[in-house]
Amino acid sequence: MTQDFEQAARALADAGRQLYQLGMVPATSGNFSARLDAERIAITVSGRHKGHLSADDIMLVDGLGQSLDGRRASAETALHIQIYQRFGDAGAVLHPHSVHATLLSRLLDGPLELSDYELLKAFPGFTTHESHLTVPVFNNDQDIDRLAAEVDAWMDSAGPIHGYLIRGHGFYTWGGSVADAMRHVEAFEFLFKCELMLQGVSVQ
Amino acid sequence: MTQDFEQAARALADAGRQLYQLGMVPATSGNFSARLDAERIAITVSGRHKGHLSADDIMLVDGLGQSLDGRRASAETALHIQIYQRFGDAGAVLHPHSVHATLLSRLLDGPLELSDYELLKAFPGFTTHESHLTVPVFNNDQDIDRLAAEVDAWMDSAGPIHGYLIRGHGFYTWGGSVADAMRHVEAFEFLFKCELMLQGVSVQ
Amino acid sequence: MTQDFEQAARALADAGRQLYQLGMVPATSGNFSARLDAERIAITVSGRHKGHLSADDIMLVDGLGQSLDGRRASAETALHIQIYQRFGDAGAVLHPHSVHATLLSRLLDGPLELSDYELLKAFPGFTTHESHLTVPVFNNDQDIDRLAAEVDAWMDSAGPIHGYLIRGHGFYTWGGSVADAMRHVEAFEFLFKCELMLQGVSVQ
Amino acid sequence: MTQDFEQAARALADAGRQLYQLGMVPATSGNFSARLDAERIAITVSGRHKGHLSADDIMLVDGLGQSLDGRRASAETALHIQIYQRFGDAGAVLHPHSVHATLLSRLLDGPLELSDYELLKAFPGFTTHESHLTVPVFNNDQDIDRLAAEVDAWMDSAGPIHGYLIRGHGFYTWGGSVADAMRHVEAFEFLFKCELMLQGVSVQ
Repeated sequence: MTQDFEQAARALADAGRQLYQLGMVPATSGNFSARLDAERIAITVSGRHKGHLSADDIMLVDGLGQSLDGRRASAETALHIQIYQRFGDAGAVLHPHSVHATLLSRLLDGPLELSDYELLKAFPGFTTHESHLTVPVFNNDQDIDRLAAEVDAWMDSAGPIHGYLIRGHGFYTWGGSVADAMRHVEAFEFLFKCELMLQGVSVQ
Repeated sequence: MTQDFEQAARALADAGRQLYQLGMVPATSGNFSARLDAERIAITVSGRHKGHLSADDIMLVDGLGQSLDGRRASAETALHIQIYQRFGDAGAVLHPHSVHATLLSRLLDGPLELSDYELLKAFPGFTTHESHLTVPVFNNDQDIDRLAAEVDAWMDSAGPIHGYLIRGHGFYTWGGSVADAMRHVEAFEFLFKCELMLQGVSVQ
Repeated sequence: MTQDFEQAARALADAGRQLYQLGMVPATSGNFSARLDAERIAITVSGRHKGHLSADDIMLVDGLGQSLDGRRASAETALHIQIYQRFGDAGAVLHPHSVHATLLSRLLDGPLELSDYELLKAFPGFTTHESHLTVPVFNNDQDIDRLAAEVDAWMDSAGPIHGYLIRGHGFYTWGGSVADAMRHVEAFEFLFKCELMLQGVSVQ
Repeated sequence: MTQDFEQAARALADAGRQLYQLGMVPATSGNFSARLDAERIAITVSGRHKGHLSADDIMLVDGLGQSLDGRRASAETALHIQIYQRFGDAGAVLHPHSVHATLLSRLLDGPLELSDYELLKAFPGFTTHESHLTVPVFNNDQDIDRLAAEVDAWMDSAGPIHGYLIRGHGFYTWGGSVADAMRHVEAFEFLFKCELMLQGVSVQ
């Protein structure tokens, strides 16, 4: 999992450009990170335009989320750190804001339960559409440490999880590399669209 | 806030190209402006294709909206002027026509009340999703001076406002720079999509 | 209205590329034409890919729709000719197939009546959103001469008209130039989207 | 139908790039193939990114689906082989996952029956919108041989068929060449969108 800062910055910039074109990081929202090694995580600086990231828009934090380069880390860094601490094989974390994720998170009372989609096989360990994938929905909270603790507590009791929604906010997903995390973003976005449309139809 | 005409024209042309690609200025609709200094505002000439703007498609008006270069200013100039006069820190005004804004403005009886969206934090002074953002909806009116006066009267009595809808028409938003105004366009368009879809679902 | 074949072919190819990217001429559907002078009309050859048109994909017909270059004119040529014969100032006719036009045409029993949209001002002679624009819907018919006669009869009795829908098929619109006709395509597509979504919401 | 491997690989890569941009092969889903001659079929290697295919992402199998180059063929190869065996004129098979196809397949109890669409004429042998096109929906099954046998049995009893849906999964379609198969993908996707939206409206 050791990788070069420039390589990671380039991968995050590419991901940002793609997600921006898909409308998933509007108005400088969202944040992305990649773990370089046990002590260093590259993460986007808060408030930057995610469609035009350069190396200067990406800072370094340590394994506890403390800045390594004098710049102030974004508040949401704590959510990235929670994932890296829990999943030793996580190499990248992506947090987009999509219309579908945002809306779905507001319409759901409990966790999203996904099944009967071939695309579930995009997630590690899922070998059939008959599997069930649970996507918890957490209430949005500006106290990020408290939110991170809530996510952590949920993971203590839950089965395999590859992402989660924050109500009215967006979603988090991760993977061994930026490419793996992007594959999960694409799969979730597809599934969120489907579920949102099913809600619209079946509610009636 | 002093900026060069060519720089402003380039920023407006870039914004136009992006908004056109997003389908938000169809059929030569919409108009954009940037304030160069206290006496000069650069504004798009009426009827030009907003996806392919060049410097020749942008004219200069003074702080009252009077043409400074012999070309006839668009009727909607008065709405831009109202914003510049009220907000000393406004450096750019963007007025796109999107399907979502147009439809939402026709479905709503009163103002749009936005809350519980993380994306509210894209607007200055909003630090939590628990804030409320009010977006007034004005009836469309071909008498632009009368419409501008109505907008102005509303602002006299309202709290923080970062944009407004015109029924069956589109929306206006602004910011310190063209980039700031574009960030607000992106945030509003995202929120309008969400609200429109929520209407579709919740009405049933 | 006299224009060069190459110039017209280039304008039609540009329009095709844009409409293809918007998903409005899927699967080689649609056809486009431009009037060169009183005796010659350039029109797309049937079955060509509209996103990658070259001069070879465009043929010449006379004012009655008879081929001038030995190639067999598409059956739908008669619908283009009807427009050129009736409107002396029509310089281009565009016929896209969009999802929104197709669906709307299937949901409507009678003509589409458009009002309270600022975008109505994209059409010649419309100076206010309070105007009414009628868009007739004709039943689809593989007998194109019969369909063209039906369109013609309708126009004899109707007010200003800038386009029409064919049920389950798409729409026709026209203008003084390819650019004007494209502006009408953009305006109609926007309005069709809005109306379709209003149907979806209001029906419930 | 004899074609060069490099030519076929290029055509499949082009199709992949287009389908990826349309969101129809998210998260490395989907697979494509082209028949080179009676004994050789070029087919995408499982798990590759369909938007960035190179020749190395495409392998060769024989007419029974056995690998000709030492690489392990994807499980879904059997569905491609079933089509090539039944249709002597099939030169390419495309299997995208689209949101519309996925959702529609979950909402339908029986086959999809398409009529009154001009776009039906995109399929060979369809000369009028009054034709009926049946698109069967098969339950998803991780036992691909069993699924292929079910498809084959259905074709024994059905009329003209140009594609089928797999529930919660996507669709298969084919044609004489990759270009023909792409035309069918575009036509199906358009029709699936229309039908899905009609469901949403008419159910209410």
